[in-house]
Amino acid sequence: MEGVPDDFALIEDRLNHYVDAGCDLVFTTGGTGLTPDDITPEATRAVLDREAPGFAEAMRAEAARHTPMGILSRGISGISGRTLIVNFPGSPKAIDELFGVLAPTLGHVVRTLRGDSRHDGFR
Amino acid sequence: MEGVPDDFALIEDRLNHYVDAGCDLVFTTGGTGLTPDDITPEATRAVLDREAPGFAEAMRAEAARHTPMGILSRGISGISGRTLIVNFPGSPKAIDELFGVLAPTLGHVVRTLRGDSRHDGFR
Amino acid sequence: MEGVPDDFALIEDRLNHYVDAGCDLVFTTGGTGLTPDDITPEATRAVLDREAPGFAEAMRAEAARHTPMGILSRGISGISGRTLIVNFPGSPKAIDELFGVLAPTLGHVVRTLRGDSRHDGFR
Repeated sequence: MEGVPDDFALIEDRLNHYVDAGCDLVFTTGGTGLTPDDITPEATRAVLDREAPGFAEAMRAEAARHTPMGILSRGISGISGRTLIVNFPGSPKAIDELFGVLAPTLGHVVRTLRGDSRHDGFR
Repeated sequence: MEGVPDDFALIEDRLNHYVDAGCDLVFTTGGTGLTPDDITPEATRAVLDREAPGFAEAMRAEAARHTPMGILSRGISGISGRTLIVNFPGSPKAIDELFGVLAPTLGHVVRTLRGDSRHDGFR
Repeated sequence: MEGVPDDFALIEDRLNHYVDAGCDLVFTTGGTGLTPDDITPEATRAVLDREAPGFAEAMRAEAARHTPMGILSRGISGISGRTLIVNFPGSPKAIDELFGVLAPTLGHVVRTLRGDSRHDGFR
């Protein structure tokens, strides 16, 4: 866990650090809203090689089942090197609600990113 | 309310006008389909600083509950300066059905864009 | 039907071939996952003039109703010239489940791409 201010270059730098360090999964929290300093999605996009929009879409759909405000999160998700990066909103309550959307996939995601190339039909 | 033809530069110009004028919310209607002259999403993207995809995603999901054709709208949503821009499809019936998805968020959106920085958990 | 290896330039070339040949609809299968050789969405994006994200979004939402792994597909959808291109995942079972999302729209899509400009409210 590391706290980083709403600074584009700093977020980009820290994300690249964790990608270079070989982390399988990097989850960010916060900085996904509508205020001018909410630039986590943009800094994340700068680091991604390939977007994987299904995580962000499914999290917003789940959030919207809890509150109409769930559509406000601008989070994105994708792959840089062999690391999956996913932007969560900042609220601990929302993180709790949304983590369950990803949880069942993460074992498979990590095996895939590490190079276990058995096809599972959702490639 | 202003009518604008399906002209990329003209749509871009009028959107920039409303952003520069300090409008909180700009809703476009039409021009989001599959024909060659449907270029409202592309002209909108040219004006946006940051995408806010949750509005467009939730509107398509809601539209698809009414008709399978709901997935055809290519509308996008995002922020330019301190203005939220959302592309609606052209049908008055669809606009009625979809406005309810956004309505509960708009008070909060406007307060956020105007700089009321109280965190609400969906930043 | 044509088999193409996971080669960016080759996929791009074959997609452009079918667009230039005037195909109404091009469906790809596979190459939409998280492994380094899954680059079908990126090669597709290189060919598209305009994204039509509703197909890909609705397919992922439907896939997620069948399995949490449904969110892993990175497929995109959009228009190149007068051709709609949609990325399906590689599993025959998933293709069966997801084709139904698109099927009711395809007659209208083809008429629209061919220039039947009657408005239907979802432009």
